[in-house]
Amino acid sequence: MYADVARDVIGCCRSLATFSDEPGFTTRTFLSDSMRRVHADLSARMTRAGMSARVDAVGNLRGVYPGASAGARRLLIGSHLDTVPHAGAFDGVLGVVMGIALVETLHGRRLPFGIEVIGFSEEEGVRFGVPFIGSRAVIGEVDDALLAAQDARGITVSQAIRNFGLDPGRIADARADASPLGFFEFHIEQGPVLDTRQLPLAVVDRIAGRSWADAIFNGHPGHAGTTPMDGRRDALAGAAEWIGRVEEHARRTPGLVATTGQIDVTPGAVNVIAGRCRVSVDVRHTDDDVRTATVDRLRSLAHEIAARRGLGIDWSPRLAQSATAMDPSLVAMLTRAVERTGAPRMIMSSGAGHDAMILAAHMPAAMLFIRTPGGVSHHPDESVAEGDVAIALAAGVNFLDELAGSIDG
Amino acid sequence: MYADVARDVIGCCRSLATFSDEPGFTTRTFLSDSMRRVHADLSARMTRAGMSARVDAVGNLRGVYPGASAGARRLLIGSHLDTVPHAGAFDGVLGVVMGIALVETLHGRRLPFGIEVIGFSEEEGVRFGVPFIGSRAVIGEVDDALLAAQDARGITVSQAIRNFGLDPGRIADARADASPLGFFEFHIEQGPVLDTRQLPLAVVDRIAGRSWADAIFNGHPGHAGTTPMDGRRDALAGAAEWIGRVEEHARRTPGLVATTGQIDVTPGAVNVIAGRCRVSVDVRHTDDDVRTATVDRLRSLAHEIAARRGLGIDWSPRLAQSATAMDPSLVAMLTRAVERTGAPRMIMSSGAGHDAMILAAHMPAAMLFIRTPGGVSHHPDESVAEGDVAIALAAGVNFLDELAGSIDG
Repeated sequence: MYADVARDVIGCCRSLATFSDEPGFTTRTFLSDSMRRVHADLSARMTRAGMSARVDAVGNLRGVYPGASAGARRLLIGSHLDTVPHAGAFDGVLGVVMGIALVETLHGRRLPFGIEVIGFSEEEGVRFGVPFIGSRAVIGEVDDALLAAQDARGITVSQAIRNFGLDPGRIADARADASPLGFFEFHIEQGPVLDTRQLPLAVVDRIAGRSWADAIFNGHPGHAGTTPMDGRRDALAGAAEWIGRVEEHARRTPGLVATTGQIDVTPGAVNVIAGRCRVSVDVRHTDDDVRTATVDRLRSLAHEIAARRGLGIDWSPRLAQSATAMDPSLVAMLTRAVERTGAPRMIMSSGAGHDAMILAAHMPAAMLFIRTPGGVSHHPDESVAEGDVAIALAAGVNFLDELAGSIDG
Repeated sequence: MYADVARDVIGCCRSLATFSDEPGFTTRTFLSDSMRRVHADLSARMTRAGMSARVDAVGNLRGVYPGASAGARRLLIGSHLDTVPHAGAFDGVLGVVMGIALVETLHGRRLPFGIEVIGFSEEEGVRFGVPFIGSRAVIGEVDDALLAAQDARGITVSQAIRNFGLDPGRIADARADASPLGFFEFHIEQGPVLDTRQLPLAVVDRIAGRSWADAIFNGHPGHAGTTPMDGRRDALAGAAEWIGRVEEHARRTPGLVATTGQIDVTPGAVNVIAGRCRVSVDVRHTDDDVRTATVDRLRSLAHEIAARRGLGIDWSPRLAQSATAMDPSLVAMLTRAVERTGAPRMIMSSGAGHDAMILAAHMPAAMLFIRTPGGVSHHPDESVAEGDVAIALAAGVNFLDELAGSIDG
């Protein structure tokens, strides 16, 4: 039913992917020149769809489509316009283009609520090492510390905003109007779950919390030739044993993912036993109790292994972020909306953070995942299937209908 | 019996340790200004002991003590004068000072052989990344490729020799005179074996061979949040399993040491599954068959682990050095020499490479290890016990006596 629209949405995303800070790749960072070209392109499309478009003081592109009455509350629909380096064409921007496409399907028809489509200026944390700058501005959480953060060239967020022709003194104007109906985000799954199960869509009910920590094993940097095996205090051998236990524990625990992504050893010479080894761990679960119990268990395992091997252990927490629930009422509406398309019902949690997680603290939020072929994301090969996008658009139209029904009723 | 001499030897080493390229540490590299001060100090000591001292074209300090007859063959005694960065006071230089002290104990008495004490200019490989430059010159193995090697500032070995006031065109003169009786090296053990067994000395019968290789595990760099545990191809998890098997295999195999000292992962982000992981391995054994069989086994284990985990594996050999036997006849004489001091008989292999390994290819060679308290070496805390040095000197005197007896007989 929405095959033509889906084709157009995908074409639009592929075209926007050519607006890049780096020729030959899609790399679009916060408040870059390539972002300005995306704004120009999409605000023209918003205007054609009957929306009033503007760029707020933090660089979010915002298009408002009025409701049937002057005082109608608004549904916010959006995702982010920035990308990781060497990105694909769909992570983030697809959700913005689909929001506009959804308004286009109305052909000027008014709903009992307004719609504001938002293209967030910053979600990936690439330029300033701080993610979610766009959505944080919408909930009023951009403070002076964030404005003073510097990029790799020493430019602050404030300066970057001014350089883009905006006024950091007006950041407060980026806040959402009072009591929106909620926030709705289309996003690619960025993982293999839907592809493996051969499903086009999933309603997201929860965004996993995450904990980051470093386990630092301290041994003794002996000579590789003169130190017998039974006289060693090898920090890397201890760390390797722990990495195996982390993997084993995560595999045994339903819904848990734990990743050891960074490792470094000192002195790091081929002929010297490792004296010190640092390993990072990233633990995620939708249940905060499971996540914190896991972190405790992994820390205990590190201590046990270290004690048995005569190693010291330092445990250094780096981040702890709670899980975020999507709004049950919106999740129910979105689930019905998907079912009305004829697609199988699928509800899943998100292991990645999204703008919906930030907005959920201040309003009801919902998310719809679209299958990511091969689970390939953050890569030029990232793709979506036209049929999946068409079903997602149909689900979006149904969702607007469900929401309208809930207000009329 | 030699307590005073031992105290003097240790004091001399501690004094030489203040001649350093780097204030506050002992760091003495090939042909540095601090090396020139060591030459001045030790050549004066050689002269006082009745030796004729010179510095050869590769910067080796050489002192000749004549034998009873004009045509007497020579015993070479020596070790190296250079150090690792932030070294201790005894690695290398102790063997040179003890060689001179041994000549001093003769008080001018002539033996049926001459003695040439050599302080090798380079053994550690610090400045040019190539070890054993001093001893290689003595066996005539410094070629044009080595002379063209550059240090971190782009200075070649040839230029460094010229800058030191020497003539690289005369390198051939550094070769040992024809058919020396042999080479004898005192050296600290640099490991914990003698300290653990509470023994002062060991005769070295063999220097272990070693193999270096890199195992590179190739997986898939997925998102730490969106990739379920059972869908991962985690290069670091595979490498960690292999590191455990390397350790286990080495512990099970008598006399084997295997060390995984370097590891790096790509992309190396806390929230990204490792896509690639390189681990180095250093394998040593005195039996070359055991060493090569071990390398084969470790490579098979890497392949097995990789296959089970859906990873690719690249195996990259970096070095293969055969084991070197010390001369059986000199080992027997040195063993008797130690036994005559009253110290327990102890024969062991060396896991580290030494100048004796280079010279052994061209003449009979022998080595005497001196206990290293705590096994601490390549560190400012490196030490030797005065009593151990005294026994080693007594053993050295006995060794000269054994050797003289073998010639007279």
